[in-house]
Amino acid sequence: MGSKRPRRGRRARKLTAGMKWWGWGDPERRAELSESAVAAVREELDVGPDDGSEPVSIEQVSLPDGRPIPDAVRAAADDVLDGTDDRIRHAAGRSYPDLVRLRTGQLEYAPDAVLRSADAAGVEAVLDACAAAGVAVVPFGGGTSVVGGLEALSNGHSAVVSLELSRLRSVELDSQSLTARLGPGLSGPEAEAALGALGATLGHFPQSFEEATIGGFAATRSAGQASSGYGRFDELVTALELTSPAGQLRTLQVPHTAAGPSLREVVLGSEGTLGVITDVTCRVRPAPPTRVYEGWIAEDFEAGREIVRDLAQRHEAPDVLRLSDEEETRVSLELAGTEGLQKRALDAYLGLRRRRGGCLMICGWEGEREDVSRRRGISQTRLRLGGAVALGRSAGNSWFRSRYGGPYLRDELMNLGVLVETLETAHTWSRLDELYRAVRNALRGALGERSIVMCHVSHAYADGASLYFTLLTRARPGEELDQWRAAKSAACEAIVGVEGTITHHHAVGRDHAPYMRAEVGELGLEALRAVKERLDPAGIMNPGKLLPAD
Amino acid sequence: MGSKRPRRGRRARKLTAGMKWWGWGDPERRAELSESAVAAVREELDVGPDDGSEPVSIEQVSLPDGRPIPDAVRAAADDVLDGTDDRIRHAAGRSYPDLVRLRTGQLEYAPDAVLRSADAAGVEAVLDACAAAGVAVVPFGGGTSVVGGLEALSNGHSAVVSLELSRLRSVELDSQSLTARLGPGLSGPEAEAALGALGATLGHFPQSFEEATIGGFAATRSAGQASSGYGRFDELVTALELTSPAGQLRTLQVPHTAAGPSLREVVLGSEGTLGVITDVTCRVRPAPPTRVYEGWIAEDFEAGREIVRDLAQRHEAPDVLRLSDEEETRVSLELAGTEGLQKRALDAYLGLRRRRGGCLMICGWEGEREDVSRRRGISQTRLRLGGAVALGRSAGNSWFRSRYGGPYLRDELMNLGVLVETLETAHTWSRLDELYRAVRNALRGALGERSIVMCHVSHAYADGASLYFTLLTRARPGEELDQWRAAKSAACEAIVGVEGTITHHHAVGRDHAPYMRAEVGELGLEALRAVKERLDPAGIMNPGKLLPAD
Repeated sequence: MGSKRPRRGRRARKLTAGMKWWGWGDPERRAELSESAVAAVREELDVGPDDGSEPVSIEQVSLPDGRPIPDAVRAAADDVLDGTDDRIRHAAGRSYPDLVRLRTGQLEYAPDAVLRSADAAGVEAVLDACAAAGVAVVPFGGGTSVVGGLEALSNGHSAVVSLELSRLRSVELDSQSLTARLGPGLSGPEAEAALGALGATLGHFPQSFEEATIGGFAATRSAGQASSGYGRFDELVTALELTSPAGQLRTLQVPHTAAGPSLREVVLGSEGTLGVITDVTCRVRPAPPTRVYEGWIAEDFEAGREIVRDLAQRHEAPDVLRLSDEEETRVSLELAGTEGLQKRALDAYLGLRRRRGGCLMICGWEGEREDVSRRRGISQTRLRLGGAVALGRSAGNSWFRSRYGGPYLRDELMNLGVLVETLETAHTWSRLDELYRAVRNALRGALGERSIVMCHVSHAYADGASLYFTLLTRARPGEELDQWRAAKSAACEAIVGVEGTITHHHAVGRDHAPYMRAEVGELGLEALRAVKERLDPAGIMNPGKLLPAD
Repeated sequence: MGSKRPRRGRRARKLTAGMKWWGWGDPERRAELSESAVAAVREELDVGPDDGSEPVSIEQVSLPDGRPIPDAVRAAADDVLDGTDDRIRHAAGRSYPDLVRLRTGQLEYAPDAVLRSADAAGVEAVLDACAAAGVAVVPFGGGTSVVGGLEALSNGHSAVVSLELSRLRSVELDSQSLTARLGPGLSGPEAEAALGALGATLGHFPQSFEEATIGGFAATRSAGQASSGYGRFDELVTALELTSPAGQLRTLQVPHTAAGPSLREVVLGSEGTLGVITDVTCRVRPAPPTRVYEGWIAEDFEAGREIVRDLAQRHEAPDVLRLSDEEETRVSLELAGTEGLQKRALDAYLGLRRRRGGCLMICGWEGEREDVSRRRGISQTRLRLGGAVALGRSAGNSWFRSRYGGPYLRDELMNLGVLVETLETAHTWSRLDELYRAVRNALRGALGERSIVMCHVSHAYADGASLYFTLLTRARPGEELDQWRAAKSAACEAIVGVEGTITHHHAVGRDHAPYMRAEVGELGLEALRAVKERLDPAGIMNPGKLLPAD
């Protein structure tokens, strides 16, 4: 792919169709919400039947006038797209505020043009031209940031462009070393399809998998649903190439080095603020012949956490290991489209065992049949010892089928008039409950009584775990962004108040940048700024993200 | 420990006895070399019975006159030691050139004084005073660097002090999260004893274990003999505190964060050039109730490597997994003090099985009895399928007993007049053989015919492995440093020529600094320099190490 270098400066008519311009994923696909689910949501959140609204049409979207792009920048790009549609489609990620702005058609920011390069040399040419002309650059992969990572801020520059990486999609497998060199523009399914044809898998399946890209996974330190088994994306990466305004930085492709501070770990998580990740080498695994997923019910969230801790500290955690709190367990059984029947079956089953409620756990094992069987046996023993009850494989398979469905569901909830957002953090086992209570209380306080605040443990480590919160409340039309801001800051303040991390795998973007001082301290910020100033002296790379304003 | 803060500026008389001032480890302990081993070494290397010499006495050592230490620096330290003995004992690490300089009593560099601080605040006070007065600082843990990491270079500053960290030895276990906060001055055995009393272990056992310190492990990205199982030291560290001239940098104590580039990974491997690591939080494990080590013989080095690769890619590598090449197998059987008998038994055994030579493998499993048994079974199956022959547990236990003995043996070989040095690198599986041949040929070329160049694989990954070379040749009196330099540069040039890493776990120090440009590129160097300039604006921290001169 991409071996022939096309002419520069060519002006393409239109991008291939991407996500819904106003929401998540495939424009032809919608989540199903049963009538009973809709009724339950309205009842719980005090949402009226006339609340909610559909998105405006794309013609109705208002966005800032496009500023002129210097000729030298145009000439350096392989494609230049400055039509309104393309600008809108690259103006936002997929956080709640992003979706509110898109759906209401009120874009405060948009790139002045969308550029594409055919390869790393093309990216270098664009960055050179932008640095010389004082044009800000927002690298764009799948457009799935949920932390404001794509906001087209120019921060004093004369224009801002979105640099779209969909043409960098090479795949090169080293089957002896089990590594793959991947282009940053490959989407999750594209990378898996190419590797799958060679018998390999990355094993990286975040909820955004269907739309997000390899470059984005690296730039944001993504973690996936099977990361307990395969490792987070930053653990899969063995080497990187960063194309920055100051030139190219490549780390050696070796399994490990003790040669000083890790520059690979400086590029990982850099969120486009240092340059564009133009090449990623990852460890891959043989595609697993066997996959088993099953559901369990823990007595309560604390008992479930102790089971997860036990498994993680034995280094015997399933590859997928998720534990919902009581609220999430209840709500997900009510909301899931076709699950009314399943909920009744579950109630009957639990009734037989004389317990009510509890916390849903999803456990999954992938690999050789014999190994899956052995590891599953160990987990089942520990689950039972921890007081959990098996729900069987249908509950696991139900999770598996819907595992990329959350963002589609969010679109439907927004149509009903619901504010829905997620956020995540992590802490050591000894402080996890403190973190859980602090964030939950802060969110409840900010959102009011008729709201839902629910949580699950999604990634387990020997020393701690992540917490993933989902919040739902009635959106007050015209005040959605204020509502969101109040909830978000309450949660962030609660997190930094107990020394948790501001983000376990969604990254920093613009939304978390004000909390980076609490995260890394003033001197930590200084160290990060020092690197940025060296690699991006003109400050054109993704301004306003990651680092707080001075 | 260290909870009471002592007066500053006090002048202690003497440090507690440390290593042999001229060699490795306990001054009362020597390696045994049998008469036959001595004869074999002399024969192979063409070393005469009159070659070699004992070290001079410490009174005969010549070192630069001590330059005055400003009063403000003295006042900031808790202990100031400026006697000749203390200066000599902190003038060098334990590389071959270090040992040559010590043994011949010709020290080109020595710190002008040795300072100690009682805690992190004391370290901060010393760094502040040194930065203000323009005094260079070499952080000093166990003094075991083998890459010139402790050379007392002042690089234009008015004086240079060694900042000895032996008073920072606190231990604090979080038994719920299985993490421990450790003072940087704890030696390996001290840390293990403190954790062992609480039922835990770090599982970090490099050959330098008995003398090296926690701070040094972190500052150099140490890897230990059981790191295939427990993880390298940089993988064990979850949080750090760096006390730099510009202030303190602390990373959050959380299991993982996606909040930007990893500052933890910037401090790891910083080798004292950014500041002093004053606090290290590590993952620990329950102390293993069962440990089994055993020896195997692979048909040849290539067959052995394929077995190691197979086990690593199945994620079923033993916790200890070492594979010697043919030369190392032969030499280690000849050299090992009491092993004459064992070699004859081995020869007889292999004779029965109709094979000669082969490559020694050491495999070790640690953990719960049942788990050790299962994992050992898997390894044994793969070893046999790969054509390896079991030597049984006595060979494994023999390795285990002597596993910290190498540096003692080196002292004895130097007494005989042998130049002996080690160096290590790593590469992906697909280029490991290329790296092996390149380095071996380069060393053979540099050392000449009557030399020994031998190698083992010491750390295995799914995507590659490390290679650890040992070289022996007759030392030409008065020319040892030139001989060493020729061999070292030949090896380093060969490594960078095939894009291997200049160091897998010995770090960069002064010896590898010239090769950092090949390792990380010009822009990588610039990024590292940018961080250093921000954290150490006066450039006082360990000058001349890690980064090459501009």
